Amino acid sequence: MLDMKLLGDGLAIFSGGDEGEWRVISMRPVKGEGLPRVERVAIRHSLDSPKRNCGWSLLGVASHVRYVERGEKEELAARQENLGRVQSTRAALIPIRKSLEWWQLAQDQRREIFEAQSHHIEEGVRHLPAVARQLYHSRDLGEPFDFLTWFEYEPSYSDQFEALVQYLRTTEEWKYVDREVDIRLSRE
Amino acid sequence: MLDMKLLGDGLAIFSGGDEGEWRVISMRPVKGEGLPRVERVAIRHSLDSPKRNCGWSLLGVASHVRYVERGEKEELAARQENLGRVQSTRAALIPIRKSLEWWQLAQDQRREIFEAQSHHIEEGVRHLPAVARQLYHSRDLGEPFDFLTWFEYEPSYSDQFEALVQYLRTTEEWKYVDREVDIRLSRE
Repeated sequence: MLDMKLLGDGLAIFSGGDEGEWRVISMRPVKGEGLPRVERVAIRHSLDSPKRNCGWSLLGVASHVRYVERGEKEELAARQENLGRVQSTRAALIPIRKSLEWWQLAQDQRREIFEAQSHHIEEGVRHLPAVARQLYHSRDLGEPFDFLTWFEYEPSYSDQFEALVQYLRTTEEWKYVDREVDIRLSRE
Repeated sequence: MLDMKLLGDGLAIFSGGDEGEWRVISMRPVKGEGLPRVERVAIRHSLDSPKRNCGWSLLGVASHVRYVERGEKEELAARQENLGRVQSTRAALIPIRKSLEWWQLAQDQRREIFEAQSHHIEEGVRHLPAVARQLYHSRDLGEPFDFLTWFEYEPSYSDQFEALVQYLRTTEEWKYVDREVDIRLSRE
């Protein structure tokens, strides 16, 4: 066991169970093993806060950008809005794991697949500011997923958000995804 | 506290104290706050293994490459040797932290400084296979340093290794280093 100095700023813990602000609308495995069905998801940002949900817990850290280049970073910053908007009562939590093959690629090869071939950033930007989002990194924490992707939007934007998610699943990048679970939520 | 599923493959824990295979030859702060002087450093690769040293502990994870491109990766793979060579009885543990300014740069800006301006990979390759090395990432773990850099070499290579370290400290990249401790070790 560890002296828990571990994990500081930017930590997020998504806990599935019977408590939490977000009610689960749907939960399904997209690829690989799913997660046990739960009624609600609670989000904490500290390991010290009480853990009450008895289902699963997923951890991630909001880290620095890994593929985004300067011009893209400026465009994202200019167009994106923060999480927590009152009208954004729908959310998606999509944990993703990529294959060892992906992680063994060099940086330029991953960037090439990510953007030049798959247009991940370009397509994502088209949905700003309607969708607010945050990526949490989990791989270096030894977690079961490599990323926890989190999105918030208004109910009226659900179809457009669905189109984005469906598009990404058709890309070259997604051939390297070997586990994905899609959880949709509603805040009441 | 956390159910310690955290931290899996590639984990390294460097513990400074009065035990361990590596005897400390020298220890000095290069930039920012130092670390308490210890006699020995032990290296563990599991959180379950007993923790006996009573000084400091630093954690990191051997992760995927962040800047290395395909051609460089192939050259590194062809030239580098693994840790643990019997004749490599000298080592350097150099924990490094970079500034917030560095982490807020986009990927292409960091790569530009790292290699095009500072020739980090190019200079490092010149010291292969004499130096065997491993980089451990710590930033996303909430650790006091962002990286734990570890190098092993023969005593006769000490001067050339020193030249590499001194060179790196003169680079544009190193302007973003805001904490660095230099620990040299000998294995008996």
